[in-house]
Amino acid sequence: MKNIAILGSTGSIGCSTLNLVEAYPERFRVLTLAAGRNLESALEQARRWQPRVLSLAEEADAAQAQAALAGAGLNEIEVVHGTEGSVRVATHPDVEFVVSAIVGVAGLQATYEAVRAGKTVGLANKECLVAAGELLTAAARASGKPLLPIDSEHNAIHQCLRGGRAQEVEQIWLTASGGPFLNTPKSAFPGITAEQALNHPTWRMGRRITIDSATLMNKGFEVIEACRLFALPPGRVRVIVHPQSTIHSMVEFVDGSILAQFSVTDMRLPILYALTYPERIGSELRFPVLELRRLDFCPPDLEKFPCLALAYEAAEAGGSLTIALNAADEVAVSEFLEGTIGFDQIPKVISETLRETQKRQPESIPEVLFMDAEARSVATSWAQRLSRSKPPLPRVASAIQHGE
Amino acid sequence: MKNIAILGSTGSIGCSTLNLVEAYPERFRVLTLAAGRNLESALEQARRWQPRVLSLAEEADAAQAQAALAGAGLNEIEVVHGTEGSVRVATHPDVEFVVSAIVGVAGLQATYEAVRAGKTVGLANKECLVAAGELLTAAARASGKPLLPIDSEHNAIHQCLRGGRAQEVEQIWLTASGGPFLNTPKSAFPGITAEQALNHPTWRMGRRITIDSATLMNKGFEVIEACRLFALPPGRVRVIVHPQSTIHSMVEFVDGSILAQFSVTDMRLPILYALTYPERIGSELRFPVLELRRLDFCPPDLEKFPCLALAYEAAEAGGSLTIALNAADEVAVSEFLEGTIGFDQIPKVISETLRETQKRQPESIPEVLFMDAEARSVATSWAQRLSRSKPPLPRVASAIQHGE
Repeated sequence: MKNIAILGSTGSIGCSTLNLVEAYPERFRVLTLAAGRNLESALEQARRWQPRVLSLAEEADAAQAQAALAGAGLNEIEVVHGTEGSVRVATHPDVEFVVSAIVGVAGLQATYEAVRAGKTVGLANKECLVAAGELLTAAARASGKPLLPIDSEHNAIHQCLRGGRAQEVEQIWLTASGGPFLNTPKSAFPGITAEQALNHPTWRMGRRITIDSATLMNKGFEVIEACRLFALPPGRVRVIVHPQSTIHSMVEFVDGSILAQFSVTDMRLPILYALTYPERIGSELRFPVLELRRLDFCPPDLEKFPCLALAYEAAEAGGSLTIALNAADEVAVSEFLEGTIGFDQIPKVISETLRETQKRQPESIPEVLFMDAEARSVATSWAQRLSRSKPPLPRVASAIQHGE
Repeated sequence: MKNIAILGSTGSIGCSTLNLVEAYPERFRVLTLAAGRNLESALEQARRWQPRVLSLAEEADAAQAQAALAGAGLNEIEVVHGTEGSVRVATHPDVEFVVSAIVGVAGLQATYEAVRAGKTVGLANKECLVAAGELLTAAARASGKPLLPIDSEHNAIHQCLRGGRAQEVEQIWLTASGGPFLNTPKSAFPGITAEQALNHPTWRMGRRITIDSATLMNKGFEVIEACRLFALPPGRVRVIVHPQSTIHSMVEFVDGSILAQFSVTDMRLPILYALTYPERIGSELRFPVLELRRLDFCPPDLEKFPCLALAYEAAEAGGSLTIALNAADEVAVSEFLEGTIGFDQIPKVISETLRETQKRQPESIPEVLFMDAEARSVATSWAQRLSRSKPPLPRVASAIQHGE
């Protein structure tokens, strides 16, 4: 029986994790839960799973939750809130495994403390590795417990790496769907609308990650995550476009052998892998191999997708530069979705922010958060400045639809 | 430094192995060599590698070789011959690794004795597992040393299996190129000529294995080999057609994850893997991942390729039935190449031979050889009987060329 803490329990990864706990009640027990601002879902989960600790983002929600749970006779549930609350959830002495799935920098402190407390951590939060990767991996090395990736690409790499020793890895290959604009000419990029960019070909995801997939910045973040998770320099973390996203990623060994992993596109699979590692247990998540028909591949076009090149640049520098990359991208994507800047101006906001960011190495999570805030402010002012040069939309939009 | 014996040194696998010894002189040393009837090549190899023992198939060749080597001042090389000679090569006390690459049943005794003598064996000889698999794997279990497959499919499986434990394997998937008649209608099969069947789309190989690839019997043999090598029932060794032969094979785990292996199509890669296992060492045999374009897959058509179904049938029964399968196929292919029977009659010869074979379990290699000889005689008489119903060739041959 494994005692689990879920950071981000009401999100998609949190719900998938609870679905697995439900499917394997003899293996996993929900010990603590950290939800965000969705009070109703959090209360429902608390009633169903009766965790020892429930944390909410806001103090007012926590007070309301406490009253509601007391009314349902569940007074033993300790209700907490904020960063301190999620740290309590992550470091509870009886917790063995922490699912880190709070979106954004809000999950950093709790994840870091979980690693420092010697918990095995399953990582679904991108910022943990992009913004605080050096701190987190150093803490994991010190604790001796693994950081297990809960996303299809890094989970695939983790699986393929079992085919050899660390020093036998030549390079790793992250596959990228290429996003909705893989075959759109670069000249049509200024006219891309939010609606078009939100239409991802293979995965249904949140708004920011969907735009990040369209710019290939998401793949850039994954390059940085891979560098940190697997202790490889950026030059040995490569990207190949694979529109079907069937193969999740690959590892190339020094002898020339390449191992690739694939499976159904269901997040429960990497979560289950992390929860049971180093074991594998049976699941109903079967890929119908005999229905395999065609897989396509092509090299990524860095001219068309400069965000990927920017991510490699930031990966080489590390520290404050990867923090700025993440912060500036979040700002740029949000400004694009609000119509302030054009799709083609997203990389411009990021590159200008990187240019203005001094190279430093954060020594603590508060320092990470400080650098993050600094970069956000730089990015916001760049977005404002660029908004004046944004082209009129309707005219170019029609060119895209026939632009392949 | 690893001391190597090569059984079948003048064949393609033998030469590739020597090429690797040449490339990694600090790692491997040729200790003993067993060649066949190619005296000239054997002498050249003996002069170059100065093995402790050289074996030739024929006594007369051995005598000639001894004289020639003595003339070259290489009297210390012990020259032997026949089955006894190849056993001497395989079991020399200083040998650590035996490459088993003698074609046909001639390699059985030496390979079996190598395993019994506690050598690590790299298997390239198909008959070892198809005809004597139960004996060989039992001996390997007793010795505690691994049997390492030296062919692209099983080597791929061996690599992918590292991604989990034996009890975590759901099934394995062997990829098949589909051969030159993948898209030829079954109605055109009676008119297929030897020339057409010898034209394999991806690999350059010997004549028998090329025909076996065209009938999919080669894949059937690989199913049997996989069952024995990896201790799986035939129902858990599946086949999928993959015309490019890029992915060499795959392993599906119980959790739904699938690992696939690919690499350049160069036999030196699986040989190197086996020679260095459990290590991997650097090689120049690099697959250009960025040049990946398109991979196709489809299920195998057992109606069109009954040999594959016959192999599953023999695999279920084991023992004398897999011996008969191999023997009857060798006879049928040779009769097809000589024009005695048609392409479509190959499975008929085999199925009739299986029908006449009593199910028995051989207890020794001589028993295997006896059952093999019995089956050959049955198959030969069936081929003679069928030759009378062979259709005239030229008329149908032209139909094939436009038959896709």
